[in-house]
Amino acid sequence: MKIGIVPIGHVKNERKSLEDDYWGGTISHLVLEDEMPEDSLEGIDSYSHLEIIFYFHQVDQSKIVLGKEHPRENIHWPKVGIFAQRKKSRPNLIGTTIVKFIKRQGRTIWVRDLDAINGTPVIDIKPVFREFLPKGKVSQPKWSKELMKNYWTEKR
Amino acid sequence: MKIGIVPIGHVKNERKSLEDDYWGGTISHLVLEDEMPEDSLEGIDSYSHLEIIFYFHQVDQSKIVLGKEHPRENIHWPKVGIFAQRKKSRPNLIGTTIVKFIKRQGRTIWVRDLDAINGTPVIDIKPVFREFLPKGKVSQPKWSKELMKNYWTEKR
Repeated sequence: MKIGIVPIGHVKNERKSLEDDYWGGTISHLVLEDEMPEDSLEGIDSYSHLEIIFYFHQVDQSKIVLGKEHPRENIHWPKVGIFAQRKKSRPNLIGTTIVKFIKRQGRTIWVRDLDAINGTPVIDIKPVFREFLPKGKVSQPKWSKELMKNYWTEKR
Repeated sequence: MKIGIVPIGHVKNERKSLEDDYWGGTISHLVLEDEMPEDSLEGIDSYSHLEIIFYFHQVDQSKIVLGKEHPRENIHWPKVGIFAQRKKSRPNLIGTTIVKFIKRQGRTIWVRDLDAINGTPVIDIKPVFREFLPKGKVSQPKWSKELMKNYWTEKR
């Protein structure tokens, strides 16, 4: 079974190269592809947050490791499989990130804190409903908190 | 640009038909496809919640409405575009839902509260990090809360 996906828009921002950290404060705008009608965005300004589903188009597919390995090659962290980490070199190369909605103008929306580089194809935009946030307390391993230490730090 | 996606697993549960509501308490198990190594799941049990990315394989693509319409054809709710709602008839037919992790056994994981029917192709599994949850207060329109009223109610 092969599923065909078509971009519905793309990202424009100042991030030109793949980097792991310092995404905090990044402002991106997402522009609809020509095939999408402008009113597909109607009502989006009634939400504070959106989930952006996008395609890691610059990742080298031949480098994807499925089995267990040390995240970021850090030997102080345990070896985990691809589905126990969020790295971008993964099967199907799909990223999902919750961003802050800033504004919409016609066929463009502005968002804060999207960890995707300039030119990234967007494959869906979903509004965040509180009812879809985690039910109960979220727990995660210690290494993942260490990994995230500078992820949302602002670049200086 | 056309992106090719391949299922990494599939859903098994008691939900055989597409229905909008009463997903609460649903227990599903996700089974890896043969191409995925068992240790792609290594370490997944150190998380409380997972994000499941899946494909709405039973939705009729010819029925997708991109422009604004009343959600669930309810005329008391405003007309909104496809990217201001979370309905399954959407471009690229991708669903993303945060579930509670229950357990793993070999190539299978058990999860609670996945709103996907039996046989649904899974295209990615990502662990939930608190650092990826919404920053700041989440707000959403009144109609969306009304729509969600029975979504997570348990079926009796």
